[in-house]
Amino acid sequence: VSRPLVALLTDFGTGGPYVAAMKGVMLGICRDLDFLDISHEVRPHDIIGAGAILMATVPYLPAGTVIVAVVDPGVGTARRALAARAGGHVFVGPDNGVLAPVLDALGPDELVSIENPRFARPSTATTFEGRDRFGPAAAWIACGTALGEFGPPVAVFTRERRPEPRAAENTLEGEVVWVDRFGNLVTNISRSAWLREAAGRSGDVLAGGRSAGSLLRTYAEAAPGALCPVFGSTDQLEVAVREGSAAETLGLGPGAPVTVVWR
Amino acid sequence: VSRPLVALLTDFGTGGPYVAAMKGVMLGICRDLDFLDISHEVRPHDIIGAGAILMATVPYLPAGTVIVAVVDPGVGTARRALAARAGGHVFVGPDNGVLAPVLDALGPDELVSIENPRFARPSTATTFEGRDRFGPAAAWIACGTALGEFGPPVAVFTRERRPEPRAAENTLEGEVVWVDRFGNLVTNISRSAWLREAAGRSGDVLAGGRSAGSLLRTYAEAAPGALCPVFGSTDQLEVAVREGSAAETLGLGPGAPVTVVWR
Amino acid sequence: VSRPLVALLTDFGTGGPYVAAMKGVMLGICRDLDFLDISHEVRPHDIIGAGAILMATVPYLPAGTVIVAVVDPGVGTARRALAARAGGHVFVGPDNGVLAPVLDALGPDELVSIENPRFARPSTATTFEGRDRFGPAAAWIACGTALGEFGPPVAVFTRERRPEPRAAENTLEGEVVWVDRFGNLVTNISRSAWLREAAGRSGDVLAGGRSAGSLLRTYAEAAPGALCPVFGSTDQLEVAVREGSAAETLGLGPGAPVTVVWR
Repeated sequence: VSRPLVALLTDFGTGGPYVAAMKGVMLGICRDLDFLDISHEVRPHDIIGAGAILMATVPYLPAGTVIVAVVDPGVGTARRALAARAGGHVFVGPDNGVLAPVLDALGPDELVSIENPRFARPSTATTFEGRDRFGPAAAWIACGTALGEFGPPVAVFTRERRPEPRAAENTLEGEVVWVDRFGNLVTNISRSAWLREAAGRSGDVLAGGRSAGSLLRTYAEAAPGALCPVFGSTDQLEVAVREGSAAETLGLGPGAPVTVVWR
Repeated sequence: VSRPLVALLTDFGTGGPYVAAMKGVMLGICRDLDFLDISHEVRPHDIIGAGAILMATVPYLPAGTVIVAVVDPGVGTARRALAARAGGHVFVGPDNGVLAPVLDALGPDELVSIENPRFARPSTATTFEGRDRFGPAAAWIACGTALGEFGPPVAVFTRERRPEPRAAENTLEGEVVWVDRFGNLVTNISRSAWLREAAGRSGDVLAGGRSAGSLLRTYAEAAPGALCPVFGSTDQLEVAVREGSAAETLGLGPGAPVTVVWR
Repeated sequence: VSRPLVALLTDFGTGGPYVAAMKGVMLGICRDLDFLDISHEVRPHDIIGAGAILMATVPYLPAGTVIVAVVDPGVGTARRALAARAGGHVFVGPDNGVLAPVLDALGPDELVSIENPRFARPSTATTFEGRDRFGPAAAWIACGTALGEFGPPVAVFTRERRPEPRAAENTLEGEVVWVDRFGNLVTNISRSAWLREAAGRSGDVLAGGRSAGSLLRTYAEAAPGALCPVFGSTDQLEVAVREGSAAETLGLGPGAPVTVVWR
């Protein structure tokens, strides 16, 4: 029998004790867990970026993974804690929008508010619910506790006002949602949105108002140093620079406008 | 049966081969180990910061964890190597102070000097005792070797002159020991020291000579951008900035004075 | 029975979804894998640095490890994908030179071109062969698929023009190949090359044209702040600064000349 798998996404960083403390508590609850670190380097409090990274990871996780996402600027306040079953996985995290993209995409089969104190760590701390609340819930779920044990079903979850691309007659306007290690600017324009809006037309890409040329199939089709719009590994439009960093070349980051002009 | 768990804390970084070489050697000794990375990003040679991170992690580790801490500016010199049983765990590391806070807090039940060459890698290198000496010792211990096999018992261990808060009639003077990813300045003033010294009084906090106001319960009680003294997730006083970085706002880091003024 | 071990070396970074997506796909193929992260912080596209890090890690991995190295500026082009059995391990990666140092050192017992589409993920993406091709191949191999199933044997592999030290009558000229977290400048001059060329003579080391003095046994033999040439943990010559960073002190990085002058 395989060990239960818990995937973690946080903004805790790996320089301090936070990730290991959270994992240590989880191993105390469910000793045979396997961990899969998605990332602990989400920009602090960046709910939108974290949601995009989850979207780019979840399709590749094995069935039955428990995913716990803790990017939580409202820690210690009254915002709800969620557990959701969707797409063959279970998701645990604050009800602040971080889970919204993936839950919207997969459609939750079950959604509960985590309230039962039996599954939380008693703690005087009010600043570390990853360790005291979300992590423990994920560990109990991974070892077999049913979602219904945690609290009442809820009907809705918070959708952070996340940017959707806006279509006009001759353009599709999106924006950068995160920047990868190569300096590639990953946008909120999916391949399917492009195909739907293009309706057979070709498109040129503008990033931060500057022309990045027309869509290429892969980085290697661009000249070294040239801007290069491609559909990246997660089928989102990204603007890259071959053998360079588009983020540095263009001086752009999350939130910067990226527009497709149809011709 | 669960796999033995070894938790690692080093200043090796994750950009090179050091962590994987150490783990590879350990797996060659005890193939069924599970690793839990505490951090490999301790500031190079920062024994005090590493000791504080251990203190903030160890209480959350499952019983029977073997913890190996390698922050070792004296690598290759004659300083002793220690193995200690304390608090239901085993600790392995150089006798340079990195283990002192946690051993002082837990009280060692057994303490030996690691000397038996049978448990070290033969190596021409004199610069990598994490791989050649501490890692192997931790792996042998995780797979069942008794501490007494490694060398003679010792009575004392090195306590790096680590800063303790100093109490005066109207103040408690501490300092920053590490800075987390959010820029929170984590101090050496514990909740219990505050309560003992306060004796019912309220306290205002000065960080680097600048007023940070009075103690709050959680970050979210501060206005965005405001300084915010709280007891953080490890029950140490920290100075934070809500939705910002106290380290950047104040220009402070490890060693900076943080003072409580009682009123 | 132990779980199969897959060691990973990439330039993907740990801030985004790439590593977890690759691992998720691999767990879907071979659920009982154990992962050992060598590093995901190779400088983007740095084939030479990645090759040196592999050389410094592989000798310490337990027998039978599957090593997958994805540093791949040519992703999406026609360059070959390799699987090789060598030194009791299996290596998987692009045929672009990243595996060349370790395959040259170990001598491959079997070398095939990965071509069988049955073992790749069907994908519209052309930019992420770590997830779609190399990772899956490593997972199938770890769970027992024979190398011959992947494609035809090949006789040769690409050797990136990597720098070899050049010996003259009174000097041995090498260069920095990577810089570790302590700022140590790790060169391509091995202990055995030094011994062979020295022929009994002592040597002084110049780094970037500046004298670093004569060879020491360990960092602690240098004065604090002084330059310090030592054979590091992987038996390569490195230039360090005791309790400091040689990279910062000298303003040097990969490619910088390091010369031994015999006397």
